[in-house]
Amino acid sequence: MKRRFYLASLLFLPLLALAGTVKSPNGQIVLDFSVDGQGRPTYEMTYKGRAVVAPSHLGLELARDKHASKKFEETDLLAGFQIKDEQQSTFDETWEPVWGETKIIRNHYNELAAVLWQPREAREIVIRFRVYDDGIGFRYEFPQQQNLNYFIIKEEKTQFAMTGDHTAWWLPGDYDTQEQKTQETRLSEIRGRFHDAVNWDNSSVAVFSETGVQTALQMKSQDGLYINIHEAACLDYATMHLDLNDTTMTFTSHLTPDATGLKGCMQTPCTSPWRTVMVSDDARDMLSSNLILNLNEPCKLDDTSWIHPTKYCGVWWEMIVGKSNWHYTDDYPSVKLDQIDWQQVKPHGRHAANNEKVRRYIDFAADNGLNEVLVEGWNVGWEDWANMWKRDVFDFVTPYPDFDLKALNDYAHQRGVKLLMHHETSSSTQNYERHLEDALNLMNRYGYDAVKTGYVGDIIPRGDHHFSQSMNNHYLYVVQQAARHHVMVNSHEATRPTGLCRTYPNLVGGESARGTEYEAFGGNNPDHTCILPFTRLQGGPMDYTPGIFVTRLSEWSDNTSWARLTLCGSLALYLTMYSPLQMAADLPEHYARFMDAFQFIKDVACDWDDSRYLEAEPGDYITVARKAKGTDNWFVGGKCDEQGHKAVVRLDFLDKGRKYDCTIYQDGKDAHYETNPQSYVITKKVVKQGDVLRLTEAPGGGFAVSLMAR
Amino acid sequence: MKRRFYLASLLFLPLLALAGTVKSPNGQIVLDFSVDGQGRPTYEMTYKGRAVVAPSHLGLELARDKHASKKFEETDLLAGFQIKDEQQSTFDETWEPVWGETKIIRNHYNELAAVLWQPREAREIVIRFRVYDDGIGFRYEFPQQQNLNYFIIKEEKTQFAMTGDHTAWWLPGDYDTQEQKTQETRLSEIRGRFHDAVNWDNSSVAVFSETGVQTALQMKSQDGLYINIHEAACLDYATMHLDLNDTTMTFTSHLTPDATGLKGCMQTPCTSPWRTVMVSDDARDMLSSNLILNLNEPCKLDDTSWIHPTKYCGVWWEMIVGKSNWHYTDDYPSVKLDQIDWQQVKPHGRHAANNEKVRRYIDFAADNGLNEVLVEGWNVGWEDWANMWKRDVFDFVTPYPDFDLKALNDYAHQRGVKLLMHHETSSSTQNYERHLEDALNLMNRYGYDAVKTGYVGDIIPRGDHHFSQSMNNHYLYVVQQAARHHVMVNSHEATRPTGLCRTYPNLVGGESARGTEYEAFGGNNPDHTCILPFTRLQGGPMDYTPGIFVTRLSEWSDNTSWARLTLCGSLALYLTMYSPLQMAADLPEHYARFMDAFQFIKDVACDWDDSRYLEAEPGDYITVARKAKGTDNWFVGGKCDEQGHKAVVRLDFLDKGRKYDCTIYQDGKDAHYETNPQSYVITKKVVKQGDVLRLTEAPGGGFAVSLMAR
Repeated sequence: MKRRFYLASLLFLPLLALAGTVKSPNGQIVLDFSVDGQGRPTYEMTYKGRAVVAPSHLGLELARDKHASKKFEETDLLAGFQIKDEQQSTFDETWEPVWGETKIIRNHYNELAAVLWQPREAREIVIRFRVYDDGIGFRYEFPQQQNLNYFIIKEEKTQFAMTGDHTAWWLPGDYDTQEQKTQETRLSEIRGRFHDAVNWDNSSVAVFSETGVQTALQMKSQDGLYINIHEAACLDYATMHLDLNDTTMTFTSHLTPDATGLKGCMQTPCTSPWRTVMVSDDARDMLSSNLILNLNEPCKLDDTSWIHPTKYCGVWWEMIVGKSNWHYTDDYPSVKLDQIDWQQVKPHGRHAANNEKVRRYIDFAADNGLNEVLVEGWNVGWEDWANMWKRDVFDFVTPYPDFDLKALNDYAHQRGVKLLMHHETSSSTQNYERHLEDALNLMNRYGYDAVKTGYVGDIIPRGDHHFSQSMNNHYLYVVQQAARHHVMVNSHEATRPTGLCRTYPNLVGGESARGTEYEAFGGNNPDHTCILPFTRLQGGPMDYTPGIFVTRLSEWSDNTSWARLTLCGSLALYLTMYSPLQMAADLPEHYARFMDAFQFIKDVACDWDDSRYLEAEPGDYITVARKAKGTDNWFVGGKCDEQGHKAVVRLDFLDKGRKYDCTIYQDGKDAHYETNPQSYVITKKVVKQGDVLRLTEAPGGGFAVSLMAR
Repeated sequence: MKRRFYLASLLFLPLLALAGTVKSPNGQIVLDFSVDGQGRPTYEMTYKGRAVVAPSHLGLELARDKHASKKFEETDLLAGFQIKDEQQSTFDETWEPVWGETKIIRNHYNELAAVLWQPREAREIVIRFRVYDDGIGFRYEFPQQQNLNYFIIKEEKTQFAMTGDHTAWWLPGDYDTQEQKTQETRLSEIRGRFHDAVNWDNSSVAVFSETGVQTALQMKSQDGLYINIHEAACLDYATMHLDLNDTTMTFTSHLTPDATGLKGCMQTPCTSPWRTVMVSDDARDMLSSNLILNLNEPCKLDDTSWIHPTKYCGVWWEMIVGKSNWHYTDDYPSVKLDQIDWQQVKPHGRHAANNEKVRRYIDFAADNGLNEVLVEGWNVGWEDWANMWKRDVFDFVTPYPDFDLKALNDYAHQRGVKLLMHHETSSSTQNYERHLEDALNLMNRYGYDAVKTGYVGDIIPRGDHHFSQSMNNHYLYVVQQAARHHVMVNSHEATRPTGLCRTYPNLVGGESARGTEYEAFGGNNPDHTCILPFTRLQGGPMDYTPGIFVTRLSEWSDNTSWARLTLCGSLALYLTMYSPLQMAADLPEHYARFMDAFQFIKDVACDWDDSRYLEAEPGDYITVARKAKGTDNWFVGGKCDEQGHKAVVRLDFLDKGRKYDCTIYQDGKDAHYETNPQSYVITKKVVKQGDVLRLTEAPGGGFAVSLMAR
């Protein structure tokens, strides 16, 4: 930490007025930084000589702070800057993720750190740019100094000036939900589509602008550049949205406020998250980029031996569909946990998390090589858990009477699997933090090593939002506390990820988008999973919970919704939707009808030494080949939208001279996501390097291939 | 808990349209309840036939709840009621407080429970009145029912219609502070005085109305009735203020909002706190009343053996005065606890909580029969603790390098005293709750059994207020968690008490008003302590921290403030300001100069078998005699305002035929709080029942008497 007299010595340094340029290692991306006539920090970015970001201003508005000395009551970090110094450097290293798409990751960039001096306030900030071959990252850094000690952010005003009316795959900017259907429009069409794009039925909705969108925002320019704006390492800072000026096609950052409307309370030394702009003329580069992971700090956990990729099934889908319930009794309009004798209440008979059913799931997992069994609805409080703004909603330690915590865990362990804990917080984060240590101790006592958390509904403390600075701090607090207990975290309805899983690899998954559950709430569009890897997955893996084989829910329930993909499309997701945590979400009795296809879910890995994106176009198709961790086996998956796709898979990545037992799971000739989703063909053959697989994906379909080295 | 079909059976009961009357046991107070033509619940109250509360309406406005079924979006509990049933009953019991002013307390009242039916919404509420000889209490009760399950309070609209332009001793209504100077004006003069009455310099100020005042509000009618409005048992509900219509002289309740502006989130079955109106034509009855304790629930702690009244000194006053500091270093403009190596920082040399000084205080306590030694500033984080809205401000477990936690506790225990823990939260309640269990475990480990908590500054979660429902829940949560660890709590800057110490007797004290510290911040008015027992102390004891002997702070510091009372006035406070927790707040070296007077502080008890208020007039004087717990010894104290007072103490309360060694500590003839505060005379004699002591209290003075049974 720097001394308070740090600045005194700087006052006597000469002030420079440089403009700086830094190029990516391969020279294709060029970043220019300067300060304009009004002293506004300004940057622009090109790729292969084509403009990606036109000149755009950087800075922050600060709020009045009633506690600050009067001198700083009205102030900003927007203008009046001089460049005091510029430092350029190069960095090149490789690192090994605890889990991931590849065994090693190269972190190679050229850096420009612009030290900016604001004479009016006698303050200094640093804007640091890192320029990679696949994009740029930059952030604000606030050194500790007498004149910038504590400050409050009214708004961050980072501009991203687009150079045309790009096509965008966007979600409405919202302080509380990311569970909307992605819209594909020109930038100029966002305003007109906005209202219809909002998921007004979500348990918590807070939109702020008719041209406000979320990140990661994937775009494509009319001349074929793929551009993606997101952020990295959002730590104790509000999640960023983008507000579009649809006259100038300029995005400006818009942070999520707290209950008072403020956007951030900062103490120097501190930094903003990295703001990222990825660019390529090849869509596959958007998917293989590690830019966001690279901009995060290295792993902070000393011991990661307890973290493991996981395939799991669970008592979940039948409740989502409405066939059974999380809650145990209908006796009360509401419950108070400390006033109910759960042994005495009358069960309604539809409680899913019961001993008999959980044992069946344990058996299914054990019989099929799945590692864990998620059980939702095991703990008391589900009678009135949702949308009541109820503080003391769960205690996270008391099971319903028909869930024998000890016996079920014992049975699971005896069968070689673990139960996967579930903590729905109902967004009552104060209550969750009060019970967290006891809840984690209980997990340690019974042998759980992973928890799925949930944040449905409006936040308590009331007035706060899911993606605010304080909530982002909360999510991280839970991950850190869980790490102390050697517990992996899979966080649903939490803020969208920004690569923090590099630093805290026990954050093995998350939701933060429309997952498979929406197939039971009206359905996801067939192209949904061909967009998510370009958007939601940029920041980290998603617990999408794939594996629905029986897509017509009315076949086995009163739910008239249906999943908009073929059975082979379901298999493909285990590859195209990268995650170290993969669920087999459908019911065991449904898999029993398709055991030949289910074999792929049994076989497929969920941790990888290598990944090759073979084909990709946002919203249309994705084809990827991955090499299973610690083996010579490869798996290939392809997923497409409602148009179908003819994939060409060149097996160039196989070891030369080696033979592979190849099993192909592909859509039947007459397969169609709506009319014939369960039509599939399984083919086995032996292949070698250089062979080509030509595979036709049905509308809403896909394929999966396993390649076992002989 | 009632079944959800509870209401169905009630629909067929006949609806009554009664008005009810209930009298106090002695018949002097009469409470009338009725429903007016618009179905508004209405009450009025008389005392000895004189109107105390004119007809006043009762009810609540409910907020729109976006999550409630549409049917109840706009609704209220204000009008359209029918009286469905009225139940009258009588209650008479005595109970023993764990600590208190008397050994036993009688709880004797007549009750009227009006069951009210609102046909429009098919909802039922109960308004329950308890009528005592010294006042009334009433509350709203909300049974569990389908049509009133969860609800949000927009505002409670309880009226208290005064019958004249009474004199009132009031504080400005404020959501965050109670540390103002009390104003004495007519009700009609509140508006004109309001702005000047606000303590704008407080670390957190949130006023809401120019006629808004706090409770307990003490009034006196022009014909000599003493009337006091407050509340009892404020549990998980926002603290009430009173907003005056100064045309009609009607107060309406005004609750403290949360960050969203809402006043309460309720789940049936539940109740409001009790609203209390005390009345008498003898001011002494205001002080001896146990109405507020009686309206609280009995003790909920199974074991109270670890709770003990306590006299203490502490490393505190010299920091308040500015002679030394809580913080340890000036090296940093701000600190981050996880980034500082405290062993390496440079101490500024004014850190009070150091080993040498604390040992001296331990010796002083041990030598003088004090039980504990408070040490503030022992833990890291004080460098930038206040008014920064800093979340991670303290960890409550890490001492500064010059405070040897183990050695000092060991030394204290060896000398027969304990250290008293200090947890300043800086109002970062989320941070405090995160560390609370560790902090209490540390206390257990080192042998602390009491903690002084503090809530200086604006609340985190940001936007919340000190007296909101959620903060009241927080304070109680801390008390409950402390009880699990056998820790007593003394909470500063927390919400004003409402008698919860009956239910949780480990809540041994609090501040919630302008305490002795303000003698170093410009001074308290001489009449301040002649008002507090009528107002702040109604809800529970105050840690006023009396005992300042050297009132001119400039004698030993650069502080030009001075305490506005005589040395004998200081002694009197140990009796007139009832508390089971009493501090000897001045420095040991100051007491050393007046050891003959300090003898009284050594002798005086702080727990009592009996208390007799002998003389009282709000803002003028209070004289009280108390019998020390488990002994035959009495202590008498008298305190007056700047006018002086001639007290007449009739020793009628002594045992007949017994002799008592009487020591009188009284102001010298020339004593005066400003010009000659340290003038006092100590007289010893032997007295018996029936003797009369005539004692002259100087301006701003007082007296203290010990009566030791032979």
